[in-house]
Amino acid sequence: MKIHVINPNTSAGMTEAIRRSALAAASSGTEIFCSCLERGPSYASCAYDNVVVSYELLEKVRREAATADYDAYIVASFADPGLDAMREVVDKPVVGIAEAAIHFAAFLGYRFSIINSMPRLEKIFMDEVKAAGAGQRLAAICLPEGDVDAFLQGEETAKRILVDTARKTIRQDGAEVILLGGGMLSGYADFLSEAVGVPVLDGVKCAVRLAESLAALGLSTSKVKTFAQPDYAKY
Amino acid sequence: MKIHVINPNTSAGMTEAIRRSALAAASSGTEIFCSCLERGPSYASCAYDNVVVSYELLEKVRREAATADYDAYIVASFADPGLDAMREVVDKPVVGIAEAAIHFAAFLGYRFSIINSMPRLEKIFMDEVKAAGAGQRLAAICLPEGDVDAFLQGEETAKRILVDTARKTIRQDGAEVILLGGGMLSGYADFLSEAVGVPVLDGVKCAVRLAESLAALGLSTSKVKTFAQPDYAKY
Amino acid sequence: MKIHVINPNTSAGMTEAIRRSALAAASSGTEIFCSCLERGPSYASCAYDNVVVSYELLEKVRREAATADYDAYIVASFADPGLDAMREVVDKPVVGIAEAAIHFAAFLGYRFSIINSMPRLEKIFMDEVKAAGAGQRLAAICLPEGDVDAFLQGEETAKRILVDTARKTIRQDGAEVILLGGGMLSGYADFLSEAVGVPVLDGVKCAVRLAESLAALGLSTSKVKTFAQPDYAKY
Amino acid sequence: MKIHVINPNTSAGMTEAIRRSALAAASSGTEIFCSCLERGPSYASCAYDNVVVSYELLEKVRREAATADYDAYIVASFADPGLDAMREVVDKPVVGIAEAAIHFAAFLGYRFSIINSMPRLEKIFMDEVKAAGAGQRLAAICLPEGDVDAFLQGEETAKRILVDTARKTIRQDGAEVILLGGGMLSGYADFLSEAVGVPVLDGVKCAVRLAESLAALGLSTSKVKTFAQPDYAKY
Amino acid sequence: MKIHVINPNTSAGMTEAIRRSALAAASSGTEIFCSCLERGPSYASCAYDNVVVSYELLEKVRREAATADYDAYIVASFADPGLDAMREVVDKPVVGIAEAAIHFAAFLGYRFSIINSMPRLEKIFMDEVKAAGAGQRLAAICLPEGDVDAFLQGEETAKRILVDTARKTIRQDGAEVILLGGGMLSGYADFLSEAVGVPVLDGVKCAVRLAESLAALGLSTSKVKTFAQPDYAKY
Amino acid sequence: MKIHVINPNTSAGMTEAIRRSALAAASSGTEIFCSCLERGPSYASCAYDNVVVSYELLEKVRREAATADYDAYIVASFADPGLDAMREVVDKPVVGIAEAAIHFAAFLGYRFSIINSMPRLEKIFMDEVKAAGAGQRLAAICLPEGDVDAFLQGEETAKRILVDTARKTIRQDGAEVILLGGGMLSGYADFLSEAVGVPVLDGVKCAVRLAESLAALGLSTSKVKTFAQPDYAKY
Repeated sequence: MKIHVINPNTSAGMTEAIRRSALAAASSGTEIFCSCLERGPSYASCAYDNVVVSYELLEKVRREAATADYDAYIVASFADPGLDAMREVVDKPVVGIAEAAIHFAAFLGYRFSIINSMPRLEKIFMDEVKAAGAGQRLAAICLPEGDVDAFLQGEETAKRILVDTARKTIRQDGAEVILLGGGMLSGYADFLSEAVGVPVLDGVKCAVRLAESLAALGLSTSKVKTFAQPDYAKY
Repeated sequence: MKIHVINPNTSAGMTEAIRRSALAAASSGTEIFCSCLERGPSYASCAYDNVVVSYELLEKVRREAATADYDAYIVASFADPGLDAMREVVDKPVVGIAEAAIHFAAFLGYRFSIINSMPRLEKIFMDEVKAAGAGQRLAAICLPEGDVDAFLQGEETAKRILVDTARKTIRQDGAEVILLGGGMLSGYADFLSEAVGVPVLDGVKCAVRLAESLAALGLSTSKVKTFAQPDYAKY
Repeated sequence: MKIHVINPNTSAGMTEAIRRSALAAASSGTEIFCSCLERGPSYASCAYDNVVVSYELLEKVRREAATADYDAYIVASFADPGLDAMREVVDKPVVGIAEAAIHFAAFLGYRFSIINSMPRLEKIFMDEVKAAGAGQRLAAICLPEGDVDAFLQGEETAKRILVDTARKTIRQDGAEVILLGGGMLSGYADFLSEAVGVPVLDGVKCAVRLAESLAALGLSTSKVKTFAQPDYAKY
Repeated sequence: MKIHVINPNTSAGMTEAIRRSALAAASSGTEIFCSCLERGPSYASCAYDNVVVSYELLEKVRREAATADYDAYIVASFADPGLDAMREVVDKPVVGIAEAAIHFAAFLGYRFSIINSMPRLEKIFMDEVKAAGAGQRLAAICLPEGDVDAFLQGEETAKRILVDTARKTIRQDGAEVILLGGGMLSGYADFLSEAVGVPVLDGVKCAVRLAESLAALGLSTSKVKTFAQPDYAKY
Repeated sequence: MKIHVINPNTSAGMTEAIRRSALAAASSGTEIFCSCLERGPSYASCAYDNVVVSYELLEKVRREAATADYDAYIVASFADPGLDAMREVVDKPVVGIAEAAIHFAAFLGYRFSIINSMPRLEKIFMDEVKAAGAGQRLAAICLPEGDVDAFLQGEETAKRILVDTARKTIRQDGAEVILLGGGMLSGYADFLSEAVGVPVLDGVKCAVRLAESLAALGLSTSKVKTFAQPDYAKY
Repeated sequence: MKIHVINPNTSAGMTEAIRRSALAAASSGTEIFCSCLERGPSYASCAYDNVVVSYELLEKVRREAATADYDAYIVASFADPGLDAMREVVDKPVVGIAEAAIHFAAFLGYRFSIINSMPRLEKIFMDEVKAAGAGQRLAAICLPEGDVDAFLQGEETAKRILVDTARKTIRQDGAEVILLGGGMLSGYADFLSEAVGVPVLDGVKCAVRLAESLAALGLSTSKVKTFAQPDYAKY
């Protein structure tokens, strides 16, 4: 099985981290193809960025469609940009990493929290939670206290901040599962789970397993109505 | 006051129809600038189309930003593409024609219906209704019975179909206000209101008046968090 | 265009303040008629008060209906008393100042807070927010800390309290837009917006512009069902 | 125990029917005082009517308060007018007949339908259902087919129409419990339950038992915030 | 009238406390039969316990059904275990003590809080609140601060903790009515109501009055669909 | 990897059908252990049945816990009985077949319908849909028209009924994905998908892949609060 994991920004470093997560999660028979965009922001953190990355993502996928033989696609940004459009354009299953993690969380605990890295992402994350029907299971979208740039001051500082933030949302908001909402944080899932004693989800891993599952069961997007192929003749 | 009404597709005919509605609605002191996109589909009717038109719309607005002196912006597609991104990129108020019509409907009757022209638009319309908090006031998103292409068979056929559809949703779904959900239908608002005896909203007209109102009151998008200007340095 | 702005209490001072806001918001061609009730409380602050002011408001409007030639009506209390009944009794558009501000807020930011002046009003405000479908956009209904009577100790004290309250709800609740929930507070909108850097809405101004818009577009309450004229023969 | 059942309209016939229901439901130790309004409509069927009857109801209750020694109050209109205000004005428990029936229905079946007698009442009934949190249990607010005036053509016709309407909502909407939404229908509860084999609730009876229960347990409206006594000094 | 109050655990002490509450609430003509389970946990505090007590409860009720002549049944655990199954198995009305208290609270104040004694019960209580449609009226499910075992250190300590917890949720969460969520707390209702000045509901008392009311009005579970008798032939 | 698939009833035939589905879905390295209950109904179709099967299921799992070395558990009834209790009792991931199918449906289309085989199951299915947050994506819970026993009249009749029912819910309710809600129907998934052209989900297959995914990623139920191990000392 071949899965195309697309990092919808231009950061080579983030693409490499995503690849590592994807490879760690993949079943033995699965080939992971990991790519990123050629144009657009180095990472996306607002609605405008999502407009651009959605466009670049879809153009890339359409461009490659003729020769592609992937069994499933993963969009590897926690903002899940362009998913509905992806489902129209390709015939194979499409999975976003945030929606994968949110749906997985339902099997692991009563309430979950998303650790956020930028205040302005709150609306984007909340829209995703509502779209996934998980509003009633959301404990909080919580920001680390203090300066978010502290994350850039080294791994030890980042770990300390994450542990403090996770412990606070477990204690105050009743979180029983943690989702790491963004690329800057996603490498810390295993560490954090170990440190605070609750499941911490890496959306890339959830998405890889979900994409494999759909493809293995021969399931793909329903094409009878909402996600039928676009009418390209209008262009 | 100068309002830029942007038709986010490439159809000159639809742009002209939008201009006529906008001019008919504008106050005496308001200048309407009406434009459309240079690239993209002749009209947008799915999520992929909305990805493309959102991108082209935002690129156009960014490109023109340096020299623009508009007091407000209107995005004139019933799918309201790119609104959150528009609110980040420009400092002036931004109004979508669907959201304008949905909010106006709350002042005119208990329940409203949207007459839809393509089945696959239902999710897009429903997402807009939910985003506007109007789910509890929605009577139905209703499709004309029979072949939608009948609309193309002349004005008399189109009028008959619209009257039948409106009467049915008034009688069966309890609709008290009608919204015309799409460019193909929007010219018929006054006719239909006269024919069936309930308010029928033309989103372009609602949006023009709302944009004028916000601008006249000195109100614009809050920039403290969600809709702060994008960080263009990442590109 | 003639708009009748009715202050549904008996306070001459509050009526004068409302008139000033209405005049400041009105378009050049609009005549503002501002009146208040002859009987009832000096201001309304509970459900019983709203029963009385709704009755006095509707009796006044029915009494004057024969000779009235207003193009729209505004009910100028943040509790929006009697709106559904007003929509039955008169043929012209009716706008409440709270509903106007709540709907306008949707165009200006993700989440809004209402600054409240009396704890017991919370249910009334929450019912309005839910009726307008804005529950998902409400950051908080927040009370100034300390003694509310401090507002009466002079303008400087009132300003300081409002700034503190607004800053707190912006920081803690994520508010991006502020609504001033009550007559005692409404004169401070421009000051507060300047001071805290987010849009602060004066419901009277929003309502004047919205009423003008509906009337100018020839729109009025749907009379086919819920808001048909009452059957006065039963009295 | 003394319970004051107030019919908030001026119809002696309807008051008599309500009295019969109340007496049939009351426990042996309970005295039922049944009265109606002196002014206002013969029955209430729209928001304007509810404004008037709420006012007359509250004035009556305030006027009689000094000498009243009732243990509980019942407002006997299916529109539940003036309940929040009643809870502010009197110290004893207050029960509306619609809310009583809606809450009782939760103990008797999964979904309930309200049989309505006038299309325009739908919004009023829906607002009550939502206020009671019963939206998820509502099967339908259903109108008898054909001319509602048929009810006035004699008891046999009325019975036939009710049976047809109830059977249809049981079969099509999944109703398992029926509420009769309005004075014109309420005498038929026992007949209808017998005829269609599901519980049919008479709101007056439910309210009498609920009012007795609250009073017997020494429970009354919380006065710490929302329903504190009005500040009559403002009048 | 005979009411069977079943304590769905094996604790004789708790059964005795429930009997006292039930007797204190019952009307003069009502006989209270109070029993508990022969097998199962001494008290139930998680989903597994509820599986066991639901089973033991239903087996007991089926076993006794042939000779039972109760007019109504009450399940006296705040987790309301097995209610839907009870409604299938017996023909008489069935009332749970949590659902009774939650529905009663709607008649007594705007918002209510449940005082909880174990963090893990939160999901069970929240599921009950949502099932009763009371999510919009819930102020908080609140835990006493500090060690819950303090309750076991004597009545005076328990009272102090309850008063502190109730005052905090009244002040911070806007609670106007208090529900005591669990057997360990239920004896303190009258004391707490007196101490903090809001209605405090004992679910057993609410359930007794509600069960009496349903039975007296001749109402019982609808058997046409969801709660029809089980098909015992499959066993 | 070893997965224990438990059919929570006593039917050997249904267990065999479940085993076939599970084996067809399992990855190459997965061992499927399929068992059923020793006591209880041959199939569960109401709340009482679910009380019994939940109990028998949990007793079986506890009894076998000492010697079990499964990596994940699947409860193979579309009523998802006892899931929360299972999550308390075992340390490994637990997946229900209905919740698995409902969550998978979110990745495959906008709206889904559940084909139901008994009217009385509607509440149980609706409760599951709401628990999974999928209410907004539910097109309908639809019953085949006519006599359900027709299913027993042979495979050809069953196929014709399923195709008719699926086509109707696709056309009338907008379903884009179909879930087969019950053991009697589940063998027809592949046939039906082929016949009507939309994804048709077999919950057993979805659950097997999901259980494998959770186990492979080292994820299991959060034990910090709601799903901590029961306190068996109380028994």
